[in-house]
Amino acid sequence: MSETNNINIKPRSRVTTGALPASQKIYTSPDDAPHLRVPFRAVRTADPQNQLIRIYDTSGPYTDPEVHIDIDQGLPGLRKDWITARAVEAYQGRQIKPEDNGTVNPAQLAQAFARTVAPLRGTGKAPLTQYEMACAGIISEEMIYVAERENLGRKQQFEQAQQSLEGGENFGASLPAFVTPEFVRSEIARGRAIIPANINHPELEPMIIGRNFLVKINANIGNSAVTSSIEEEIDKMVWAIRWGADTVMDLSTGRNIHHTREWIIRNSPVPIGTVPMYQALEKVNGIAEKLDWEVFRDTLIEQCEQGVDYFTIHAGVRLAYIHLTADRVTGIVSRGGSIMAKWCLHHHKESFLYEHFGDICDIMRRYDVSFSLGDGLRPGSIADANDKAQFSELETIGELTRVAWSKGCQVINEGPGHVPLHKIKENMDKQLRECGEAPFYTLGPLTTDIAPGYDHITSGIGAAMIGWYGTAMLCYVTPKEHLGLPNRDDVKTGVITYKIAAHAADLAKGHPIAQIQDDAISRARFDFRWEDQFNLSLDPETARSFHDETLPKEAHKLAHFCSMCGPKFCSMKISQEVRDYASRLNDKTQGMAQMSDRFQELGNELYVSSNTLKKNKAELQVGSPDNAD
Amino acid sequence: MSETNNINIKPRSRVTTGALPASQKIYTSPDDAPHLRVPFRAVRTADPQNQLIRIYDTSGPYTDPEVHIDIDQGLPGLRKDWITARAVEAYQGRQIKPEDNGTVNPAQLAQAFARTVAPLRGTGKAPLTQYEMACAGIISEEMIYVAERENLGRKQQFEQAQQSLEGGENFGASLPAFVTPEFVRSEIARGRAIIPANINHPELEPMIIGRNFLVKINANIGNSAVTSSIEEEIDKMVWAIRWGADTVMDLSTGRNIHHTREWIIRNSPVPIGTVPMYQALEKVNGIAEKLDWEVFRDTLIEQCEQGVDYFTIHAGVRLAYIHLTADRVTGIVSRGGSIMAKWCLHHHKESFLYEHFGDICDIMRRYDVSFSLGDGLRPGSIADANDKAQFSELETIGELTRVAWSKGCQVINEGPGHVPLHKIKENMDKQLRECGEAPFYTLGPLTTDIAPGYDHITSGIGAAMIGWYGTAMLCYVTPKEHLGLPNRDDVKTGVITYKIAAHAADLAKGHPIAQIQDDAISRARFDFRWEDQFNLSLDPETARSFHDETLPKEAHKLAHFCSMCGPKFCSMKISQEVRDYASRLNDKTQGMAQMSDRFQELGNELYVSSNTLKKNKAELQVGSPDNAD
Repeated sequence: MSETNNINIKPRSRVTTGALPASQKIYTSPDDAPHLRVPFRAVRTADPQNQLIRIYDTSGPYTDPEVHIDIDQGLPGLRKDWITARAVEAYQGRQIKPEDNGTVNPAQLAQAFARTVAPLRGTGKAPLTQYEMACAGIISEEMIYVAERENLGRKQQFEQAQQSLEGGENFGASLPAFVTPEFVRSEIARGRAIIPANINHPELEPMIIGRNFLVKINANIGNSAVTSSIEEEIDKMVWAIRWGADTVMDLSTGRNIHHTREWIIRNSPVPIGTVPMYQALEKVNGIAEKLDWEVFRDTLIEQCEQGVDYFTIHAGVRLAYIHLTADRVTGIVSRGGSIMAKWCLHHHKESFLYEHFGDICDIMRRYDVSFSLGDGLRPGSIADANDKAQFSELETIGELTRVAWSKGCQVINEGPGHVPLHKIKENMDKQLRECGEAPFYTLGPLTTDIAPGYDHITSGIGAAMIGWYGTAMLCYVTPKEHLGLPNRDDVKTGVITYKIAAHAADLAKGHPIAQIQDDAISRARFDFRWEDQFNLSLDPETARSFHDETLPKEAHKLAHFCSMCGPKFCSMKISQEVRDYASRLNDKTQGMAQMSDRFQELGNELYVSSNTLKKNKAELQVGSPDNAD
Repeated sequence: MSETNNINIKPRSRVTTGALPASQKIYTSPDDAPHLRVPFRAVRTADPQNQLIRIYDTSGPYTDPEVHIDIDQGLPGLRKDWITARAVEAYQGRQIKPEDNGTVNPAQLAQAFARTVAPLRGTGKAPLTQYEMACAGIISEEMIYVAERENLGRKQQFEQAQQSLEGGENFGASLPAFVTPEFVRSEIARGRAIIPANINHPELEPMIIGRNFLVKINANIGNSAVTSSIEEEIDKMVWAIRWGADTVMDLSTGRNIHHTREWIIRNSPVPIGTVPMYQALEKVNGIAEKLDWEVFRDTLIEQCEQGVDYFTIHAGVRLAYIHLTADRVTGIVSRGGSIMAKWCLHHHKESFLYEHFGDICDIMRRYDVSFSLGDGLRPGSIADANDKAQFSELETIGELTRVAWSKGCQVINEGPGHVPLHKIKENMDKQLRECGEAPFYTLGPLTTDIAPGYDHITSGIGAAMIGWYGTAMLCYVTPKEHLGLPNRDDVKTGVITYKIAAHAADLAKGHPIAQIQDDAISRARFDFRWEDQFNLSLDPETARSFHDETLPKEAHKLAHFCSMCGPKFCSMKISQEVRDYASRLNDKTQGMAQMSDRFQELGNELYVSSNTLKKNKAELQVGSPDNAD
């Protein structure tokens, strides 16, 4: 509830800092850009083959003991100098108005973040957006940074990288064995990838979203009119990135929206996305019909100046498509979609988002805010999947994607939703076709509707599949989906579930660095290095606590068994004995190989010819007795 | 721990009984067999289209208030008369020996279930196994029973059944629109399905496992040398079937194995599977080399007489294959597989399971115990998936499947394990090819190794996919996998996760009855019938508690919003307004359809021709200014 929304708010008190178990923050610098410091998490293990396992790290300075965290100050401006060297100008900026925070009464107005710098905007005198720079052949610091990051700081490709790619199935993607800054540039110029990075969000550690890079995940946070405070939302953001969220969407719909967002952006090392329509609607007291271009435009500029990195814009919800939803089982389930549908019907007019799309591009271009073209008509149930309403909107999204590119903007497209397994691939294939391979950003999809309370799982299944097929970023779903606002635990469960889905997809695509962590943890498992198994896992704390429920003693961390089978039965233990035995044999003779030849032919003894099978079968028909003991 | 393993054990005290929320137990009778009573769960809803939703029910008498549950007595012998009318004889049976319970000292010997009936065995004078009867053209009561059960008691096919099948993708399966007893017989005779049902387990409510029926799930329980008691295991069994486990495997490896199993079988309405090797090993004090055919044979008969419905037999682990595992990352991870590998190497001999396979068939046939041919060489890590060791064993399993059929036995085959997404289908296709479409029974597969503590999810992803591809039964994995023995909560989480996977697979295959529950819950969601949404879900208690965390009041059960978005923003609410508005319009004019035509052409206004795109792009290259606001 909102009791904590008052000027005594002390956000810092709740934020989680410190490294994960056995982990340390390390930084590497690209050869051609020694001034860049790209962060990774390194896990110390007792693995003879690999004592320091490097892992992609989304957690930012919060897990670096060297960095002093002060929520009131916000994070350091990592990108400040890169940005100011470009065609930008500082300016007065828009005045904050009471309606920006939902016109709350003073007692409930949250403390404002003490912002010290004026907003920047592009002068238009030179390429500014990552897309414009890429098209102009410019390789930005952000491009160099993400290349280093995607390679896990490798200086050249692993021997097995090419092999790994050839062993995978990527459905026509073009993953490289090694990511170069030039490859990043070319992918962005082709519209196949984006680096969401508003020039007013210098605190950002750049990351890339595209089919030919690691699959990313987004975590949604945000207070609602019913519950939660700014303090909780900042904590959720830091908590989400600690467990692996690559971007965070602030979907706040309650009071204090402006202040909440400012606190989050100033303290966020990951791109922040929003749905500006939510705040615009608050400004007209939740009455959709009262929305218009002016209030929406004003909201866009407000959020551009704050540093939001990508906007969900539901410009594909056209008047002509709304009637297609009338016979659906669950109608329109996207908030933005339903708001625009209501507006269109009330005014008997085409959507002002669609009609002003060019103007929206012009605004977003000046701050390099990326488009996330929203799927306002996505299916909300298995019954409505892949219907005409959904696919008509997708075709319009394809059209708008090309418009945005022509205006110099970065674009990703949002996808469903609720889709049964056999209809998932059609979504991916149609998006690639209609939208010129712009990165796809899907919610789930949920593969069945019968498990509220477990929709992180119903959707994690669909997410892994569509990620494998080519989706670039997966929007998480928490166990609370359809039931309530996720709390801290739900956020963690959602993030871990989606890290699993994204990683399973990377493995299947044969991504060169995907299997390193799997192999390291598997070796730890086989060697009974329990500590390493815990520390290398997505959630070391949970892994350890589950193990310790039944075997809490420190001695058990070295035991060659766990409580699943007990000491006598551990197959890993027996199988190590088998291996040792075999190697002893090998010293004496050629060992197993030789033996196996000797016994190869045994197989035939038991083989029953098809004639015998027929004969026996014939006997069965008349129920002949057999002479079993 | 085992402290409760004493004669004061009161298992009944822990078992959960009573119906699920808003649910009642109903029974239907097939037209051609009015004496059969097939159970279902019926959920009462306020859905105008369907006020009583019928759901497949695995929970047995425990959810029927009419039945008095007495664990000491065991369940009624539903199948007793069917079985005694067949070619069976009662006989003295084998004496229980101290080693059957791991030679525990008297203080730790568990109370024995007071069994009153002598075991039965086949006389061999007529077809006895479901496979023999099916081949002889006999339709058993079990076949009629499962047909009714698979149809959810429908008396004829729904109109949309055929349509539903055509809308699905089943990869060459042959699902019927309506299941007849003759179809069941023919599938069993072809070896494509089994009804696991030991003649000494009359308490069983028959169920069928096959690619052309609903996908089933198995839950593993069982105490280990380290922890848990009989009481806990009976409770886990009842708990597992309450949430939807179709079969239960008792993998006990500690003391009191015989007594534990007896208590479980006498109280189980679902098929019970075991791995006899585990008990055999206990009988030789855990020293694999000491195993021989005599002790194994004796254990098989012991368990056949108790009423175990299917045995995992690792007869495919041949001496010739063992060296193929030497270079694996995780060697041999199957307990049975590693035990046999050790035995083979020590004796330099072919596996006695392989050499005595015909004898094993002869024993299992007399009790109609089904084979579950174990995959002792399944991969234990992503790195080892689909390797030569695994596939060589699968080929031998195919060979043994045909031998078992020729001996009159029912057979299913076990599958992996740990497999990345892109290598899953190859497993299914090869199994269908090598094993003549015998039902496939897979563990997971886990699609990544990096998430111990969440392996119900890493494996639920693979399970949904392989279930869709054609796997007949999915063996659950709990969150404790690799870490410890699952407790009651883990069992429930594992079962719910696998019900999701199995159901997602049925939906994708277009199973005629699969989507009923999805549509019912989706309608409830759209109508804000919160109670119905909770009650129709796989886990009503969790769904309700999640909702009530933020909106506990009864009034909120009728509210047209939840705490995710709050009252102003609920898309479902807005979308209902849109629908109402549209229908009002329709009364006046042709409404939306007409409007949409009027606005159809608007799309073109905004369309940017490819020439314009090229032109704009050209400008970008030189970074031309644009006149954004």
